[in-house]
Amino acid sequence: MPSTTKELLARYVRVRRATEAICAPLEIDDHLVQPVDFVSPPKWHLGHTTWFFETFVLKKHLPGYLEIDPHYRWVFNSYYEALGDRVQRPKRASMARPTLAQVREYRAIVDALVPQPVQSLTDAQWCEFAPLFELAMQHEEQHQELLYMDIKYILRCSPSRPAYSCAGPIPTSPTSSGFLDIPGGIQQIGFDGDAFCFDNERPRHDVLLRNARIARAPVTNGEYLAFIDDGGYNRPDLWLSDGWARVQTEQWAAPLYWEMIDGVWHEFTLRGLSPVERSTPVCHVSYFEADAFARWSGKRLPTESECEVAVQRHGVGTGGMLGVGAVWEWTSSAYLAYPGFVPFAGALAEYNGKFMVNQMVLRGGCCATPDGHARITYRNFFQPEMRWQFAGIRLADDTH
Amino acid sequence: MPSTTKELLARYVRVRRATEAICAPLEIDDHLVQPVDFVSPPKWHLGHTTWFFETFVLKKHLPGYLEIDPHYRWVFNSYYEALGDRVQRPKRASMARPTLAQVREYRAIVDALVPQPVQSLTDAQWCEFAPLFELAMQHEEQHQELLYMDIKYILRCSPSRPAYSCAGPIPTSPTSSGFLDIPGGIQQIGFDGDAFCFDNERPRHDVLLRNARIARAPVTNGEYLAFIDDGGYNRPDLWLSDGWARVQTEQWAAPLYWEMIDGVWHEFTLRGLSPVERSTPVCHVSYFEADAFARWSGKRLPTESECEVAVQRHGVGTGGMLGVGAVWEWTSSAYLAYPGFVPFAGALAEYNGKFMVNQMVLRGGCCATPDGHARITYRNFFQPEMRWQFAGIRLADDTH
Amino acid sequence: MPSTTKELLARYVRVRRATEAICAPLEIDDHLVQPVDFVSPPKWHLGHTTWFFETFVLKKHLPGYLEIDPHYRWVFNSYYEALGDRVQRPKRASMARPTLAQVREYRAIVDALVPQPVQSLTDAQWCEFAPLFELAMQHEEQHQELLYMDIKYILRCSPSRPAYSCAGPIPTSPTSSGFLDIPGGIQQIGFDGDAFCFDNERPRHDVLLRNARIARAPVTNGEYLAFIDDGGYNRPDLWLSDGWARVQTEQWAAPLYWEMIDGVWHEFTLRGLSPVERSTPVCHVSYFEADAFARWSGKRLPTESECEVAVQRHGVGTGGMLGVGAVWEWTSSAYLAYPGFVPFAGALAEYNGKFMVNQMVLRGGCCATPDGHARITYRNFFQPEMRWQFAGIRLADDTH
Amino acid sequence: MPSTTKELLARYVRVRRATEAICAPLEIDDHLVQPVDFVSPPKWHLGHTTWFFETFVLKKHLPGYLEIDPHYRWVFNSYYEALGDRVQRPKRASMARPTLAQVREYRAIVDALVPQPVQSLTDAQWCEFAPLFELAMQHEEQHQELLYMDIKYILRCSPSRPAYSCAGPIPTSPTSSGFLDIPGGIQQIGFDGDAFCFDNERPRHDVLLRNARIARAPVTNGEYLAFIDDGGYNRPDLWLSDGWARVQTEQWAAPLYWEMIDGVWHEFTLRGLSPVERSTPVCHVSYFEADAFARWSGKRLPTESECEVAVQRHGVGTGGMLGVGAVWEWTSSAYLAYPGFVPFAGALAEYNGKFMVNQMVLRGGCCATPDGHARITYRNFFQPEMRWQFAGIRLADDTH
Repeated sequence: MPSTTKELLARYVRVRRATEAICAPLEIDDHLVQPVDFVSPPKWHLGHTTWFFETFVLKKHLPGYLEIDPHYRWVFNSYYEALGDRVQRPKRASMARPTLAQVREYRAIVDALVPQPVQSLTDAQWCEFAPLFELAMQHEEQHQELLYMDIKYILRCSPSRPAYSCAGPIPTSPTSSGFLDIPGGIQQIGFDGDAFCFDNERPRHDVLLRNARIARAPVTNGEYLAFIDDGGYNRPDLWLSDGWARVQTEQWAAPLYWEMIDGVWHEFTLRGLSPVERSTPVCHVSYFEADAFARWSGKRLPTESECEVAVQRHGVGTGGMLGVGAVWEWTSSAYLAYPGFVPFAGALAEYNGKFMVNQMVLRGGCCATPDGHARITYRNFFQPEMRWQFAGIRLADDTH
Repeated sequence: MPSTTKELLARYVRVRRATEAICAPLEIDDHLVQPVDFVSPPKWHLGHTTWFFETFVLKKHLPGYLEIDPHYRWVFNSYYEALGDRVQRPKRASMARPTLAQVREYRAIVDALVPQPVQSLTDAQWCEFAPLFELAMQHEEQHQELLYMDIKYILRCSPSRPAYSCAGPIPTSPTSSGFLDIPGGIQQIGFDGDAFCFDNERPRHDVLLRNARIARAPVTNGEYLAFIDDGGYNRPDLWLSDGWARVQTEQWAAPLYWEMIDGVWHEFTLRGLSPVERSTPVCHVSYFEADAFARWSGKRLPTESECEVAVQRHGVGTGGMLGVGAVWEWTSSAYLAYPGFVPFAGALAEYNGKFMVNQMVLRGGCCATPDGHARITYRNFFQPEMRWQFAGIRLADDTH
Repeated sequence: MPSTTKELLARYVRVRRATEAICAPLEIDDHLVQPVDFVSPPKWHLGHTTWFFETFVLKKHLPGYLEIDPHYRWVFNSYYEALGDRVQRPKRASMARPTLAQVREYRAIVDALVPQPVQSLTDAQWCEFAPLFELAMQHEEQHQELLYMDIKYILRCSPSRPAYSCAGPIPTSPTSSGFLDIPGGIQQIGFDGDAFCFDNERPRHDVLLRNARIARAPVTNGEYLAFIDDGGYNRPDLWLSDGWARVQTEQWAAPLYWEMIDGVWHEFTLRGLSPVERSTPVCHVSYFEADAFARWSGKRLPTESECEVAVQRHGVGTGGMLGVGAVWEWTSSAYLAYPGFVPFAGALAEYNGKFMVNQMVLRGGCCATPDGHARITYRNFFQPEMRWQFAGIRLADDTH
Repeated sequence: MPSTTKELLARYVRVRRATEAICAPLEIDDHLVQPVDFVSPPKWHLGHTTWFFETFVLKKHLPGYLEIDPHYRWVFNSYYEALGDRVQRPKRASMARPTLAQVREYRAIVDALVPQPVQSLTDAQWCEFAPLFELAMQHEEQHQELLYMDIKYILRCSPSRPAYSCAGPIPTSPTSSGFLDIPGGIQQIGFDGDAFCFDNERPRHDVLLRNARIARAPVTNGEYLAFIDDGGYNRPDLWLSDGWARVQTEQWAAPLYWEMIDGVWHEFTLRGLSPVERSTPVCHVSYFEADAFARWSGKRLPTESECEVAVQRHGVGTGGMLGVGAVWEWTSSAYLAYPGFVPFAGALAEYNGKFMVNQMVLRGGCCATPDGHARITYRNFFQPEMRWQFAGIRLADDTH
């Protein structure tokens, strides 16, 4: 966490500019689309992250502050019940107004105002303010990754399959293989210390592991193709019951973004449509697919404890576990509270805690995760059927 | 129908410009929204009307013509099965591409090309070409009204309730009251002659009427408020069974676009939100509401034959039946083929005929109908639950 | 209508016994099933028809009458809003109680009580009572046909395809072919006179017909097979838009109850599963199918006026129009009020009038219609997608 | 597990008779109802448990055995993909045939045949056969509890709220209060040994616990009423996000089976409708409600490890953890595989393993669980929104 006002504001500017840089290659039209309920229009992300600073920074710490537009409370509140009523998620693209131009203006005004409370803080206020401000920046970083996810989904819907940018993030290939040992016994996971982390990473606590090993690299497209070619999507015995139902109702036959063209599997990436590259990590698979692949492989998915301890021991794996050029990796752990979990205070208690059911933990980070955002203790989570995040598979195994 | 090439092209330019003029007051964002399945984004209307000229004029009459973009066939085909697969209607706003800028360019290119085939027609070709070309212009005029309908629905979804324009079309008040006689006996309705009409207006044929009378003016907001105040939305005995189900599931308590603010009914119009004006015609009611109101009034809705014969006899009523400053008027007639109906040829057979079930006829025209578009024989039609068209009520009665 | 008390009660007993005779071949289990929302369990029919007599006869005309069970008002009210809340239609089979045994007892009690008010009527009361009582019997006759429809649907759901009875009603083959002339000009349709008819058959009124002709016999399975073999279910140009949507979402490829077994079309009838008989009338087609078949044939469906006038002129056709061994026949007429229509009084106003939208008229009668129930003026009606009624096709044509 | 043929067959007879005894108080009608998708008609349970013996015992171990009816494979297979296609779960009550009488006959035939393979087993065969046979009996015991659940749901749907029996199982009141300590450190949970257990209880393995305490008794209705009266169902801050969505869409305001009559909360039990008894354990709450109640209490739900270790240490608590007169208790543990989990072999691999996602573990047993069925290691599981099982709440707390 930055420790001086100047550093803090410099980081603020960097974070805010990074969001805008992600949207820079987009057409205006691309900002306004919500093809499915779980995808938000980029315009909404731009407004929501700004509303987050307005609500949790300006309203709280800028005396006499008045909302820029009272409608924004309704339009840009994502899910905070404590902050009142809001537009239903599937209706985010039904708001023609505020326009993208107005949202950009909203960003500019908030950006102009944010330095004021920051610069006038007493030391005592700093202690309360700094973590909140850092959280708002971390929050915006999370939306940077969401932007890449949503932009990819949006572009894919147009029949011309337009590329986002020839420099758009894509997973890169691992250069190692084989397995790493994970020692059994009592280990510790979770965050400890003064630096920023999300509430769901705390407290650091003991966990009990068994002797196991974990793959050095995530599963590749080539390996996943073998699963497909072996009839993986046609064998109910490989699947969880809910997963098999999805395979049938949504006619899954490959990862999201794959399409067969003239007998060749192609993959839509942020750089456009191209033949599936065998050596890169498989990406955009659901937990159900990851679980089925692992069962077919005669192996299993790692627990989140195993993932965290593995990184403690072995550092960043190739195609690595902490986000450089890689994919998020599904674990076999349900997303639940750590023992002794205490949510953030106030409205922010809703940030993570209220989602702790019916989701699975992913670990690592991905090519779309902002540099420096993820941590060894970071807990990502999605419903098991979700596929639009950059999620892949890392195998694990018991050792005896 | 224009009879010279020059007149024809002049009319073409007027029609095309009129469409663009309707969109001129819009923000870019307003073009891209589809808040419910039956509303299309204005961008789509701009593209679809252009595709109509491309498909039915350029492809047919410009030798060697190549499609501007093969994807447009998929994106801009509305419902023509004969012309192949197309994007599902509810997904029209999921196409970020082509962008609005590209669609405007598409319009410009087609507009530049259209004069070519027109100017090179032989006399023999003219006979085939002119009706088709006129149909494409009439089609675009229909979309001009749809644009107003969709724009109104779209703007209403934003919490700020932005006005379209201070000059946007709104129904104006009638200045007369009372009833006009309609003579019984055999009468004729339907179109006859060489001028343009839609296939569903033909053939002109005999109908049998009973002595009746029809109101000089449509029902006003003030009259409709009396229905509301009398518990009209709470009395199942006034409603058709399917209508009562709608009242309950969609919690209808007033026409679409009405909202109660501080105890006062307000109405959203293209000019913004304002208190309901008692003297203007009630608008944006479904057939179910029109039917319930008529039953509550002790009167009935007119048949489409009665409407047409009334105009034959009495001309345009005040707040009139043919579209100047008025509302479409629900009739008690189901939308069915006239005896001897022959659909347009080719793919255009799908234009009207395939919708002849589960819809009710509306007659007249409305404030959003382009000047000169509607005719005394014009048959508009919507499902009985639809409310976003500018539809009101005219009462009729039997006389003895 | 019977004119003496004795005749009336004799008819009452016959009608009530006929209902029970229809259920006699059923297993107890068959009485309790509701495989789709529009099918009611036979137990419910037995109770509902009894509740109709209890509500409209005993409660009104037996002084001091107390309901047999106050829950029955809720369980056995079909759709009368004026009579209060009731079980939602799709939940009729969720009522385990009253049991079938209790419902039979309910019938017995009501049957024992009904003669009391009948026998004690004054002449003045008779005038009011007799039509109501007749209506209740006609109502039960309508449910006799519904019972056959629902029983057929229910039995078909069991994988063993059990037959109802070797004497169950099935359409029989016509023995004539060709067309009958229908004269143009002003004709009269609708019921007139003192005998019983439903409110929707009145008033008798003038209609205007064109010269036309109507087939002597309904379309046979053999003729319909030619439509299937010609790709009728794969050609969107033959279908109304809503009909084509049904073909696709419900994968229609033949009439309801047809299934292909070892390359041979079989039909499930009340007598069991057997190969499709080419000479019998096609049955269990929707309006959409009837309309598509007519278009494919180069002919059209008749209007309801044409049907009625044809029977006036030509009497009962072979495989005939009035229900002996035949199928109901879809007309091209929407189900709307006749001019001057006045619904039954009181709660019975809901009997027919409130359904006058989004339905099409069928004329004639069918093998499952009780003897003497249908009339030349009888108007049956169903939504255009419905197929479980015994509905077929009769073609018509214009003559010049 | 019984060790002699005689003992085994005696147990078989007891289990099968117990199922029939549960259905004995039912009317025939009660057997045939499926008011919601997750409830199966009792007739189906009677057939399915019989099919289980036919499929896994007779077909495998009775040479030359032919199926009693080939349709039964389709009608009575619950969810075994490996055994082929089957009726969709929501359609179980749409099968009028086989009738209840036929299903009872099916039971009788299978019961008559089962002794044959049992009596002719060699010692070698016994080792393979006995566990499978025991599983089939345990399976039937599970359906005995399901029968009580489904019967309760079915009877509640009838407006007369008929009682099942004055001796129907109901939770009884605990007689103790306060908390028991659970020691931290490495403990063992899971089944070990030769006796029967389900695959999901194995293997016995180490778990790491923290010092904690667990309530001696489940939460009572009186305690839960305090939560209701404190606005528990109106405060989103107490709820998981998915839970709050359920509260709103399903309008939860109390446990399932509670209804307010004249200002007094009543509860429908298998013995009928009566005022809520404050001292009995609250029952028929979802995981969402249990979790919200615990949060409101300032405590938490126990993990499944804590529950198992608590019983190891302290034995059966009052209103106890092992099913005597009690309710199942929601844990905070997601239902996942134990480390080293190996599913049953063959088609029975689908018995438990494929459901290990999106469900939460319940521990203990309930008043409807057959005597001797549950074990200290028994893992029950349901989706977090489910309420028709006899599920309640036991609180836990951390100690320091």
